Amino acid sequence: MPTPAELDRLRVVLVATRNPLNIGAAARAMSNFGFFNLTLVNPYDPSFREARSAVGASELLKNAQRVDTVAEAISNCTLVIGTTAAGSQRELRHDLIRLEQAAPKIRKHLKSGQAALLFGSEKFGLSNDDLSHCNYLLRIPTREQHRSVNLGQSVAICLYELARDAKAKSPASRESSATHAAHKPATTDDIERVTGLLMQALEASGSLQVRSEAGTRAKVRRLFLRHKLSTADAEFWLGMLRQITWKLSGPQDAASKPKPRK
Amino acid sequence: MPTPAELDRLRVVLVATRNPLNIGAAARAMSNFGFFNLTLVNPYDPSFREARSAVGASELLKNAQRVDTVAEAISNCTLVIGTTAAGSQRELRHDLIRLEQAAPKIRKHLKSGQAALLFGSEKFGLSNDDLSHCNYLLRIPTREQHRSVNLGQSVAICLYELARDAKAKSPASRESSATHAAHKPATTDDIERVTGLLMQALEASGSLQVRSEAGTRAKVRRLFLRHKLSTADAEFWLGMLRQITWKLSGPQDAASKPKPRK
Repeated sequence: MPTPAELDRLRVVLVATRNPLNIGAAARAMSNFGFFNLTLVNPYDPSFREARSAVGASELLKNAQRVDTVAEAISNCTLVIGTTAAGSQRELRHDLIRLEQAAPKIRKHLKSGQAALLFGSEKFGLSNDDLSHCNYLLRIPTREQHRSVNLGQSVAICLYELARDAKAKSPASRESSATHAAHKPATTDDIERVTGLLMQALEASGSLQVRSEAGTRAKVRRLFLRHKLSTADAEFWLGMLRQITWKLSGPQDAASKPKPRK
Repeated sequence: MPTPAELDRLRVVLVATRNPLNIGAAARAMSNFGFFNLTLVNPYDPSFREARSAVGASELLKNAQRVDTVAEAISNCTLVIGTTAAGSQRELRHDLIRLEQAAPKIRKHLKSGQAALLFGSEKFGLSNDDLSHCNYLLRIPTREQHRSVNLGQSVAICLYELARDAKAKSPASRESSATHAAHKPATTDDIERVTGLLMQALEASGSLQVRSEAGTRAKVRRLFLRHKLSTADAEFWLGMLRQITWKLSGPQDAASKPKPRK
């Protein structure tokens, strides 16, 4: 069972939620299971106001962050998991894991790192762009014939599974927590910086068409996520890409030239 | 994981439910997890009518039984479990078991016998009289400070736990059976090509010093090896790096311009 410090490392992220009852239900389930970090990405504002001002609305809901993009919501997180009801109908570019299998991985990550668990809108779920931020996807193991779980229930089930006492299982082997940059996983902010620089380089090289820009950015982000960069890897990439974009974006200003890499 | 016949032996019993949304939410969760026997004891009738006539109300809800007493609801059941948020404040005459511990017992019972799972009203839970029908009680393992779980979420969590695949301990099976280039590991030749192109880009950007060239090449190669590229990743990198080096290495020969990436 996760400790309070571990529970605190999980950010619950509701993306584009419409229904105030669902926002309230998510907050209530979080409080039931001891999770207190709620972030709303671009919620339908009247709903957010309504949920917040509801009688009995919790401190948790009052302290919830409201941001405009998934990138902001997951900043500092080193693991991002999307929830989906998708089966075979949507082409999935991610690993899709059942909740029971995802939970031990998430719990293990929370021992030392921040994680975000993303829930999409009631009607459309997570968009492809939202998904491009995710390391992998989890699904609640429902019947094939009725996959779509109510949002508030979905949050409750996922948090229950994370808080569930797994004593039945064999003791989790604790991996040695390497603390230096070579093994410390890069944060989502690092990934965004690397992605941004590579996008600049592609743009400057004239290979990007405007209509495909967003799709390419998502592909590049997923690429770097798959690469599982360490902090040191991210630094190395940033150094190289800065040189390349600086050269590509000429006419060049000597003062802005990055220092040569060692 | 219970078989359909076993799932059919569980009766979900909602006692004195007030809110039509909760009746709908309970029915939806039942359908998600494959339980189809719903009985309502003495519900607030306008709510029951509203829930039944809601757009998208399920067959399950239309087939739900409505009875006046718990005794009728549990007829033929050889195991009756009450759900409660009660902690030490209420004097409990029953065994109170955490959901995780109750679930295996219930699943075992369903192999041959009928069982009923009782959920009380939103405001008062199960009465002492309702409880008197129960073999034991279960509680969802919430924080001490916030025990009361929303009714719809409560039903969803309990049914999830019952339907949950206990084999979840085994290593994550990849459900998406993508066997194409996306998962085929890149060869060492691929890695050399990607490394070579990135080295060209670094050279052309003026950031490489001759004396450190070999060292940097080795660092770049190790970087790509750590990234564990798939064949598709390698292709993607090659496409991007070709564009970048082509642009960097000007004066440009139109004939040698790589095709824009799709």
